[in-house]
Amino acid sequence: MSFEPGTTLEQLRQAAAHFAAERDWDQFHSPRNLLLALVSEVGELADIIRWQGDTEPTIPAQHQQHWADEIADVAIFLVRLADRTGVDLPKAFMDKLAAAGERYPVERFYGSNAKYSDADPADDSDPQSER
Amino acid sequence: MSFEPGTTLEQLRQAAAHFAAERDWDQFHSPRNLLLALVSEVGELADIIRWQGDTEPTIPAQHQQHWADEIADVAIFLVRLADRTGVDLPKAFMDKLAAAGERYPVERFYGSNAKYSDADPADDSDPQSER
Amino acid sequence: MSFEPGTTLEQLRQAAAHFAAERDWDQFHSPRNLLLALVSEVGELADIIRWQGDTEPTIPAQHQQHWADEIADVAIFLVRLADRTGVDLPKAFMDKLAAAGERYPVERFYGSNAKYSDADPADDSDPQSER
Amino acid sequence: MSFEPGTTLEQLRQAAAHFAAERDWDQFHSPRNLLLALVSEVGELADIIRWQGDTEPTIPAQHQQHWADEIADVAIFLVRLADRTGVDLPKAFMDKLAAAGERYPVERFYGSNAKYSDADPADDSDPQSER
Repeated sequence: MSFEPGTTLEQLRQAAAHFAAERDWDQFHSPRNLLLALVSEVGELADIIRWQGDTEPTIPAQHQQHWADEIADVAIFLVRLADRTGVDLPKAFMDKLAAAGERYPVERFYGSNAKYSDADPADDSDPQSER
Repeated sequence: MSFEPGTTLEQLRQAAAHFAAERDWDQFHSPRNLLLALVSEVGELADIIRWQGDTEPTIPAQHQQHWADEIADVAIFLVRLADRTGVDLPKAFMDKLAAAGERYPVERFYGSNAKYSDADPADDSDPQSER
Repeated sequence: MSFEPGTTLEQLRQAAAHFAAERDWDQFHSPRNLLLALVSEVGELADIIRWQGDTEPTIPAQHQQHWADEIADVAIFLVRLADRTGVDLPKAFMDKLAAAGERYPVERFYGSNAKYSDADPADDSDPQSER
Repeated sequence: MSFEPGTTLEQLRQAAAHFAAERDWDQFHSPRNLLLALVSEVGELADIIRWQGDTEPTIPAQHQQHWADEIADVAIFLVRLADRTGVDLPKAFMDKLAAAGERYPVERFYGSNAKYSDADPADDSDPQSER
């Protein structure tokens, strides 16, 4: 689906930063606190689909709103984490995608779920790479 | 820090969707696969700061680029996950922030790290709420 | 499969505690450090099976040893975390299983993947319960 | 603290396996389902201490029982995951600790939180290693 087209990540960053600032919560938003909060919200996502069965990957309709809320929670903490640790998130996003493009050339990885490191044992510099 | 101001989330969604489509990877990008990928990348973030000590919350300077890369990985999979499960991420983000604003009124939670559910035992509808 | 039958959890706790003590690492093994380490190792597990596809849940044979190693890493940090936060792990394990048995009576949940809270909306005290 | 001394991991495995079998739940306990369940329970742990602040690593006294319950949940799913994927958990635990002992010799890593790969750039075969 398409996202609402006009919203920039910088606007979201400002909204989340304003939310924290007006409650004087920056004192709690250390990198480690924010990462643990992110882990907690990712756990909420896992909770929704953990028993779905490997052949039923879709979100149950009655949980769609809950799912959207938890996706949003993860996004909020991720934006806060980037903001508080000096990461320009939209730039890092596009940079990483460009690097993944070089690591996974279309002609070699078309329709393949092999890791680039599995596909070419000579290159194992980053086994956690983007897919 | 500020983010690059012009990039919309919809642009990032399109970039990540294009990346997957040109490699015919939508077949691998099921919700559960993407969530496991997200979990893996969050683990990478935790790996960077797990031994930092509770009193040294900042990212080590020599790991800043690695940190930014892993933040980007989490963001890429989160955007893909929203895209593939019908979640309008910027809308969900702002909706959730608005809901958190009602749950955590400024006057009552200023400077407090109490959960709204701890602060008012009568309200325990969502113990995982936003902070 | 069966586990090696003679090893107690207390023996594993002592082995991990001895490992840390002889390296003077208790100073790094705070609850939050250990939890982040656990998150990192769980991410390693997710990395191994993230692209397996929803219809191929088994561990690839060539990754079985890696999988076992990462399972062990999670176990080591979990035992350390229990040890460092005053949790008698074998007792807590059996207590939790007994509590789950009361929450999920055999006759009512036989062959069902419903959550007890979904099955009976009146009981929503713990939406994260054991399955 | 010490654990209850008599309980073997094999006894815990049998207890958890019996719990699942008598409810006919093995059908839901695929590796990926169990891993997502594990992720969810780890998220519960993170939720308890996410706002503790980096200088207050201990578990709040009023949450100690909740903490023990969630530690137990993680352990239950980890034991199930090992059981369902053919991993002899006590053996893997001791094997991994022995391997970590070789990777982190006492004399070289005493009181150091450096990664072995940081300490010796020549050895970077496994950047996620045990500490």
